[in-house]
Amino acid sequence: MSQISKEHVSRAVMPNEGRTGGSMPATSLGVALIGTGFMGKCHAMAWRNVATVFGGAHPRLEVLCDTPLDKAEAFAAQFGFARASADWQAVVRDPSVDVVSITAPNGLHRPMAEAALAAGKHVWLEKPMALTLEDAKAMAALASEHPEQVTILGYNYLRSPAFQAARDMIAKGEIGTPRAFRGVYDEDYCADPDLPWTWRMTHEGGGLGALGDLGCHLVSHMTALMGPVTELSAITHIAIPERASAEGPKAVENEDSAMALLKFASGAQGSFATSRVARGRKCRLQWEVHGSEGTIVFDQENMNELWVHRNGEAGFTRHLTGPAQPDFTQFCPAPGHNFGFNEQKIIEARDLLVAIAGGANAGPDFAAGLEIERIIHAMAASGGAVVKL
Amino acid sequence: MSQISKEHVSRAVMPNEGRTGGSMPATSLGVALIGTGFMGKCHAMAWRNVATVFGGAHPRLEVLCDTPLDKAEAFAAQFGFARASADWQAVVRDPSVDVVSITAPNGLHRPMAEAALAAGKHVWLEKPMALTLEDAKAMAALASEHPEQVTILGYNYLRSPAFQAARDMIAKGEIGTPRAFRGVYDEDYCADPDLPWTWRMTHEGGGLGALGDLGCHLVSHMTALMGPVTELSAITHIAIPERASAEGPKAVENEDSAMALLKFASGAQGSFATSRVARGRKCRLQWEVHGSEGTIVFDQENMNELWVHRNGEAGFTRHLTGPAQPDFTQFCPAPGHNFGFNEQKIIEARDLLVAIAGGANAGPDFAAGLEIERIIHAMAASGGAVVKL
Amino acid sequence: MSQISKEHVSRAVMPNEGRTGGSMPATSLGVALIGTGFMGKCHAMAWRNVATVFGGAHPRLEVLCDTPLDKAEAFAAQFGFARASADWQAVVRDPSVDVVSITAPNGLHRPMAEAALAAGKHVWLEKPMALTLEDAKAMAALASEHPEQVTILGYNYLRSPAFQAARDMIAKGEIGTPRAFRGVYDEDYCADPDLPWTWRMTHEGGGLGALGDLGCHLVSHMTALMGPVTELSAITHIAIPERASAEGPKAVENEDSAMALLKFASGAQGSFATSRVARGRKCRLQWEVHGSEGTIVFDQENMNELWVHRNGEAGFTRHLTGPAQPDFTQFCPAPGHNFGFNEQKIIEARDLLVAIAGGANAGPDFAAGLEIERIIHAMAASGGAVVKL
Amino acid sequence: MSQISKEHVSRAVMPNEGRTGGSMPATSLGVALIGTGFMGKCHAMAWRNVATVFGGAHPRLEVLCDTPLDKAEAFAAQFGFARASADWQAVVRDPSVDVVSITAPNGLHRPMAEAALAAGKHVWLEKPMALTLEDAKAMAALASEHPEQVTILGYNYLRSPAFQAARDMIAKGEIGTPRAFRGVYDEDYCADPDLPWTWRMTHEGGGLGALGDLGCHLVSHMTALMGPVTELSAITHIAIPERASAEGPKAVENEDSAMALLKFASGAQGSFATSRVARGRKCRLQWEVHGSEGTIVFDQENMNELWVHRNGEAGFTRHLTGPAQPDFTQFCPAPGHNFGFNEQKIIEARDLLVAIAGGANAGPDFAAGLEIERIIHAMAASGGAVVKL
Repeated sequence: MSQISKEHVSRAVMPNEGRTGGSMPATSLGVALIGTGFMGKCHAMAWRNVATVFGGAHPRLEVLCDTPLDKAEAFAAQFGFARASADWQAVVRDPSVDVVSITAPNGLHRPMAEAALAAGKHVWLEKPMALTLEDAKAMAALASEHPEQVTILGYNYLRSPAFQAARDMIAKGEIGTPRAFRGVYDEDYCADPDLPWTWRMTHEGGGLGALGDLGCHLVSHMTALMGPVTELSAITHIAIPERASAEGPKAVENEDSAMALLKFASGAQGSFATSRVARGRKCRLQWEVHGSEGTIVFDQENMNELWVHRNGEAGFTRHLTGPAQPDFTQFCPAPGHNFGFNEQKIIEARDLLVAIAGGANAGPDFAAGLEIERIIHAMAASGGAVVKL
Repeated sequence: MSQISKEHVSRAVMPNEGRTGGSMPATSLGVALIGTGFMGKCHAMAWRNVATVFGGAHPRLEVLCDTPLDKAEAFAAQFGFARASADWQAVVRDPSVDVVSITAPNGLHRPMAEAALAAGKHVWLEKPMALTLEDAKAMAALASEHPEQVTILGYNYLRSPAFQAARDMIAKGEIGTPRAFRGVYDEDYCADPDLPWTWRMTHEGGGLGALGDLGCHLVSHMTALMGPVTELSAITHIAIPERASAEGPKAVENEDSAMALLKFASGAQGSFATSRVARGRKCRLQWEVHGSEGTIVFDQENMNELWVHRNGEAGFTRHLTGPAQPDFTQFCPAPGHNFGFNEQKIIEARDLLVAIAGGANAGPDFAAGLEIERIIHAMAASGGAVVKL
Repeated sequence: MSQISKEHVSRAVMPNEGRTGGSMPATSLGVALIGTGFMGKCHAMAWRNVATVFGGAHPRLEVLCDTPLDKAEAFAAQFGFARASADWQAVVRDPSVDVVSITAPNGLHRPMAEAALAAGKHVWLEKPMALTLEDAKAMAALASEHPEQVTILGYNYLRSPAFQAARDMIAKGEIGTPRAFRGVYDEDYCADPDLPWTWRMTHEGGGLGALGDLGCHLVSHMTALMGPVTELSAITHIAIPERASAEGPKAVENEDSAMALLKFASGAQGSFATSRVARGRKCRLQWEVHGSEGTIVFDQENMNELWVHRNGEAGFTRHLTGPAQPDFTQFCPAPGHNFGFNEQKIIEARDLLVAIAGGANAGPDFAAGLEIERIIHAMAASGGAVVKL
Repeated sequence: MSQISKEHVSRAVMPNEGRTGGSMPATSLGVALIGTGFMGKCHAMAWRNVATVFGGAHPRLEVLCDTPLDKAEAFAAQFGFARASADWQAVVRDPSVDVVSITAPNGLHRPMAEAALAAGKHVWLEKPMALTLEDAKAMAALASEHPEQVTILGYNYLRSPAFQAARDMIAKGEIGTPRAFRGVYDEDYCADPDLPWTWRMTHEGGGLGALGDLGCHLVSHMTALMGPVTELSAITHIAIPERASAEGPKAVENEDSAMALLKFASGAQGSFATSRVARGRKCRLQWEVHGSEGTIVFDQENMNELWVHRNGEAGFTRHLTGPAQPDFTQFCPAPGHNFGFNEQKIIEARDLLVAIAGGANAGPDFAAGLEIERIIHAMAASGGAVVKL
């Protein structure tokens, strides 16, 4: 097994690969934001402060889109957007708009992204990319026909200083050759059996289950650290097969949890698990990479800590987030002053703006996003524990 | 010893006491910001997003002040302020300005704050309040003559959801009667003996040492949790008494560390320590409160965790920051998604704006800030280890 | 999926199932110990203190066996055995001996255990049971022909109070129905590429690699917690395929690491990983069990802590080892006073003696040990990542 | 401030100072053990395995003493002592006895230790040394008249490999010059207000409170790490001043908690706190030492971890107990395999036996124990928070 090389690693899933080469745009870009929920607010906060933190021209917050219109208007005022709209088709074609932030429900990702691309806009799309692999393929194909327009997917966990530092350490060989990956992403938002059935729990309405919601984030970390996957096996589980609805009990169709074995192009191996029914876990995107010369451990629930052991050291050392890690200094010059979840999105906005201004695309763009979708859909389709005892 | 009562606790050091009663201002306030360093940028980020997060009218970022003017102009563009100025006296009198954020060097706190108060402005002042106790007294006296103008000190660590949750738990009696406080605030920014001498290390230039820079934060936490202090003893230490300067070695005058014993009005007791030369510590504002029915432990380096033990529980439980804690939901609806250092300042801005709009003053205002100054200056003056062995 | 039932769980791998029913023997048993290394000393310490801790008749330490004889004699004096011998065949037939502790190299496990059984002795055998599955089958078959003689395998990690407490919690349904297991056992004793080749790295000399040395312990925990495995897939890896020897580089034949997916008879699923090349890991036998109503987490490197979350609790609670956990009180009445690795072996000796005195066999006996061997050999033989991407 | 020198550090409180110079006795010593409770059993386990672990002649367990006689007889059988007695005066004069282990109630420490010394025996005495400072002085004076007889106090927490490693690191200057000590020892065994009154809570019956039971251990660590104390101030607190008894409520006379400030002969400073009413704390003997070049942190509840930061390292590193730490290898050759509380006592027995065999006295002997008593009694007598606010 050799060091992970450029060839081994899908370009698109290497976050911030070219970040030193690019700079923030000097002229202001017009922004439309679709959606005002959890992620909509997160995008809004990022758009408002990306230039405060990183310099460059402040984006113009042109239009906020949601339905009904009065909701859009209220949030436009709160988020500081100039106008409101309830018509997303008009919004993505609006001539004052250069970039569209899409935080609408997953089923709308494809039509919105395609319309925005067709209208010549840059697209910032929340994950998962789409409900089906076919949708993702179509979107990636269309994006490839618009090479001048930047696409970026909202894999925000790739942006934290600690994750970037981990990735840099591995890329520089500080733990030698990566040999093994062990990763989980667990939450418990579906652990309550009394949680009622929703259309999100169907293939048609929600696409994949834990894999689509959580597993894709873990894949984004895994491939950014380990490079491309060549083989896998997986098992999935629906822990609570039926849930109550107004029309009586209905079947849950997509997986509550999944586990997988992986082989990487580099020769390394990996284990992978995700669950939305893991009692007590809130944002446990946790992994470790075993290298020939050291080990790195990360847990998003303590996203300001990286645990590193290098050959010769007496044990694992806690690296607190600080100016020694990428992109932290612009937020705060003092180590140990915690970086926050929402601030990841400011870095993501920076990555997008730098790419628009001609810098490298930090990714994942739609091409890289499709690779992530391929992996989670392959996991969902695999029936992997085949040896009977 | 009885439960801490309203009478026991200085009103001013109880953060967010009245937060449920107030709301964000409906009309926009004009803001001036003095200073563009670490804290200046932190204030700017807060001003830009306070209404995005909490609603209400967005503040108008009128004027940014620093010297020289071209620096002020560059930062005004970056931070999104309408104008720049190098003349703070003019800025604090500017009729478009309602609130002045002061993040200038400590020696300027008094003249700037007094001028702003005299000009009828609300004042958001970074800590420590002033270089000397006399200055703090004068400032508090002036503020008391302007009861319609809100003053608030930048004790941002009071604003985190975890700290607020801890304070609420104690106030509600969830750990019974608080009996003991154990607190430290340690960093290592002066641990390197080769760090050159600066005027900040003198009484005249910097005021107190670790007590003024770090200890005051710990006092803000301690008094918010335990109520007023009635007696104390302390010892201080200058670990590196001389440092190099261009003119040769010069004496360090203010303390590198301090430790204290405390008695509270409630009957509880406490220990207290702070150091700026504690190797490896980055933001270790760490304390525990022992109550008759439980114990709470906090460490700002992991500011998204609160460790709580209540009688009958099997051990200490890790409470991850989430919607169950005050003020988190407006930032993010999902637990375990880390709150950041800078976001504390957004809550601080909210507290200020709510008070201006007629809500309760979450404090610490200048009166409460003076109480904090009294305590740290009493520590600096005490020579407390008096029993010879 | 239903609660794990008696039927689901192999009796033999349920440690201490019958511990409340049995008592220590009232008459003294004669002990022979074969081997004076790491595990030999560990057995000796246990034999000397099992009655001190648990009462009953002190065993008679009759004979210590090792080669050469003078080594055996020196250790007989140190360990407090009456006699020494270099002839294990004679030792296992010695009429003063009732129980034989076997801590010799793995290749000798089968002949020694079979001879001891044939001579009518009880057998305490270190793990792994044997080099090959065929050997293990033969040993289990022979043991089944001697039902009056107790066999027990040295799966000491099953004995710690924390592990027993975890198992009891799960058995009592405190975390509801177990749905998922995630386990690893990692060490780094082979991580150094300059570690020379030994016969232990061959199939013939050492049997399995990480699976035989570490993985079998993880299986012992897993099956005790989750019940029998019905299906699995696994991948294995030889990280350092060649090592130096006096005759030049030689091939490493057995696995440095393995990862597996599992399905349990209960319907639960699991992931499994073990490595002997995980830099920085020393005894990381770490797992978590996700139940419908809670989660338990354990790590042998902190074997005095159990992390438990139950539905309704605010997070994970740290349960320190103490009298509330099985078997701790006899060692120490005070909680938080750490239980040690070696003390696990005293409990193991107690389990053996109670079974000899007619109590329940806490296991794993040779029948249960064979089940563990079946699983690790199935993992070694599986080639599990079958979906090409 | 200079490096701690031999002159600064009281010899007696430096554990294992001479351990490399001495060896275990070649001829067997006769042992009497007084007491069969928590500590009695702990001594018994140590006596049975000290030679198993460290070599040398096994001690002869001659006589076990407790009242009534049948209790002594039952425990003599369990602990493996040859005889039982209910007459401690006879036991300490028994000609077959060379060493007396005293684990009787504190009020008997002085008469038993004095009688044993007068009878020419070596004495292993549990802490605290005595009820009063006067008693401790008398005992130390008598011991000084018997220089050929070894005395050692049961400060077992000095013996763990992690503590020894910490002490060695500091002594070797690995964290530079120690500047500050921060230590606590908290438990919660008296936190329950319904715990009935006992004579242990009186000055006459129990001597000091938390200081005598817990604080003395913390002083043993502190002085072993930092050298002698020259000045202190302290405050004490009785959290629950009255408790129920059969005759109605009675007053608690000795302190539930104490806090202190300290100055050391070296110029360093310290803070100190202890409590027996700290909810949730079980054995939290926790401290940190700040040196000019690094920091070390320890917590007895995780006694197999040492957290070390040295200048230039990225953070704190977790040093798991292993063969790199003193005295661990004889128990286990494998790192990360936890050392236990009871095993500390085996090292203590070794220290005693090596001193009897002519090696260095690892201490604390009665002279050093008196120093510890002086400090805790000075704390109890100090009224230290003297500055009124």
